[in-house]
Amino acid sequence: MKFMCDGVVLSDAAITVSKACAAKTLIPAYECVKITAKNDGLTLVAYDGEISIRKTMKADVLEEGEVCVNGKFFSDFVGKISDMSIVVSENEKGMKISYGDSSTILQTLPTDEFPSLGGDPCEEYFEVKQADLKNLIAKTVFCCASDDSRPILKGCLLEADQGKLSATALDGFRMAVSSCELVGGTGYLKIVCPARTLTEISRILDGEEETLKLYVEKNMLSVAVGDTVLRSKLYLGEFVRKENIFPAEFTTTITVNRNELIESVERAIILIRGDKNNLIVFEMKNDGARITANSEMGNVAEFVNAALQGKELKIAMNGKYLLDALKALEEESVVLSFNTPVSPFTAENAEKKQSEYLILPVRTNA
Amino acid sequence: MKFMCDGVVLSDAAITVSKACAAKTLIPAYECVKITAKNDGLTLVAYDGEISIRKTMKADVLEEGEVCVNGKFFSDFVGKISDMSIVVSENEKGMKISYGDSSTILQTLPTDEFPSLGGDPCEEYFEVKQADLKNLIAKTVFCCASDDSRPILKGCLLEADQGKLSATALDGFRMAVSSCELVGGTGYLKIVCPARTLTEISRILDGEEETLKLYVEKNMLSVAVGDTVLRSKLYLGEFVRKENIFPAEFTTTITVNRNELIESVERAIILIRGDKNNLIVFEMKNDGARITANSEMGNVAEFVNAALQGKELKIAMNGKYLLDALKALEEESVVLSFNTPVSPFTAENAEKKQSEYLILPVRTNA
Repeated sequence: MKFMCDGVVLSDAAITVSKACAAKTLIPAYECVKITAKNDGLTLVAYDGEISIRKTMKADVLEEGEVCVNGKFFSDFVGKISDMSIVVSENEKGMKISYGDSSTILQTLPTDEFPSLGGDPCEEYFEVKQADLKNLIAKTVFCCASDDSRPILKGCLLEADQGKLSATALDGFRMAVSSCELVGGTGYLKIVCPARTLTEISRILDGEEETLKLYVEKNMLSVAVGDTVLRSKLYLGEFVRKENIFPAEFTTTITVNRNELIESVERAIILIRGDKNNLIVFEMKNDGARITANSEMGNVAEFVNAALQGKELKIAMNGKYLLDALKALEEESVVLSFNTPVSPFTAENAEKKQSEYLILPVRTNA
Repeated sequence: MKFMCDGVVLSDAAITVSKACAAKTLIPAYECVKITAKNDGLTLVAYDGEISIRKTMKADVLEEGEVCVNGKFFSDFVGKISDMSIVVSENEKGMKISYGDSSTILQTLPTDEFPSLGGDPCEEYFEVKQADLKNLIAKTVFCCASDDSRPILKGCLLEADQGKLSATALDGFRMAVSSCELVGGTGYLKIVCPARTLTEISRILDGEEETLKLYVEKNMLSVAVGDTVLRSKLYLGEFVRKENIFPAEFTTTITVNRNELIESVERAIILIRGDKNNLIVFEMKNDGARITANSEMGNVAEFVNAALQGKELKIAMNGKYLLDALKALEEESVVLSFNTPVSPFTAENAEKKQSEYLILPVRTNA
């Protein structure tokens, strides 16, 4: 194998693809990038057992072939020669990268150890505006579980139905639901996509108005943006349904200024830093809402103007969860809706109901 | 105690002063800021046993008094109310901060537990341009030792003599020497100042052309910038003398393009990441210099154009130390000077000799 190419283009491709390299694994191939030189270009691909990213680029191929090298080293290294023209070849010692008067040998791995992914995009798909998808991901993915106790919760439920794409994420303590318009598709589709995959898709999106087709086949998702193709395994199993969890009615509802509430909660959280529950107490009365937090450092008593509808209520919660939800909402006014001190409550925009957050309260003895 | 003040001003003062709060200590007072309200203003001061920072500011003092609170919490907290007018008072529960319709109580510490610093600036001082001092600190302080094996090496030797201020720092493996012009002073002065103190001084400097007076009394340094006064203990003991360590003559000297060499060393270091010696081999020949590095990931062979004077030489070194020195130098061309593969070598600008670096080579079996 031998090819010549521009350092910037190769570095750019290496950075994109190496995002799918595993960081720590017992399977060396999962840390690798496979480079295939064929016809008038290169294909770089990395696969960590869950996500694969493939990118094609132009190059002067002098001798066709393929080679497999550590992705992190390769991408860091070519990032440092991006202002030069590069010649890459293979010899018995490994992959030789020549630039200027210098050269570097990187250890290679037999290419047959690189796992095959197989399968072309099939015919089922749904299509959304890139900006809408990016927004949908940002509004939900932070509520996905990060531990392995229930693996399916590390994913986000995506459901394409009747011109709408909705996303649901939950970690056992809180839940996010958001939706956007579909531009097109082949009909009803329901998948559970790993949160990491959605984050990577968000990263490779390069447009606003352009649309993106997300192809689905059995347990695989596949998207193409320019020369980059990302494929990911999907999670199988039953996902919690929003309808079973979101209360249909509420007995206490307050409307508050979002920024004012964010600032109050942020101050309350400073004092309880280090407490894993981030416990704050929210008390809604006719004249407004009070937020209190106590720790050995001191105590905060915040007053926030709020319009109350329904019964007065006192409820304890994880302030961090409320803050995350408030920051993901967009409008000047938000609505918080409650029932009892031990039942889940919701947060949403006062006007635009695209995203909704449900949070479990914290039971206290007091 | 009771005062009213502007949130931004108080927040700014708290951030400045809390830089001298200890992070982890068995003495709670070292983590505190002491606030004294008197006449028409406040004095905030923090002291961690080594450095103290004091700042004065205007405030509406309704009742004189003093209070002592955790500096990190206080500074983070007032940072979140900086857009409001604040009333601070003391009651039996602690320090009460009132803002808008909200209020927060912070636990206080008896003010008599706050250590007294005492002493006014005495008459001995030296004076430098702020920009020159900042530069001098940046060029040397990274070579100070970071471990406690020889405490005095955690400091930087400052010597004011005959219109020149020179700084020397070393960590046992490398040494930095830099100097700048003195604007004035009371005569010969020699101190060993903690690296951390110099970093903090650098941070509070707010001008370029303005000069700064550094007052010295026995084992104390004191500087004032605007309303901020920083005082620091100095280290006592004999510091290594540059003259005893820098070789007077060299048998091999090369002149190289600084950026070209930086890029080559950076590439070499990527492959030996994780090796604590960052071992690279430098080989100087008549036609130029070669840099090689080996690891299980592969090997780099860099060629750098270099003008050689004297004997050809091959020497092994810590690439990271060379890189730090090259980055601190300023000119397009730098000069590296060597004797044998086991004797220290130097790096300096080709023209302006204000800073000079000495690095110990690494002994290898090869």
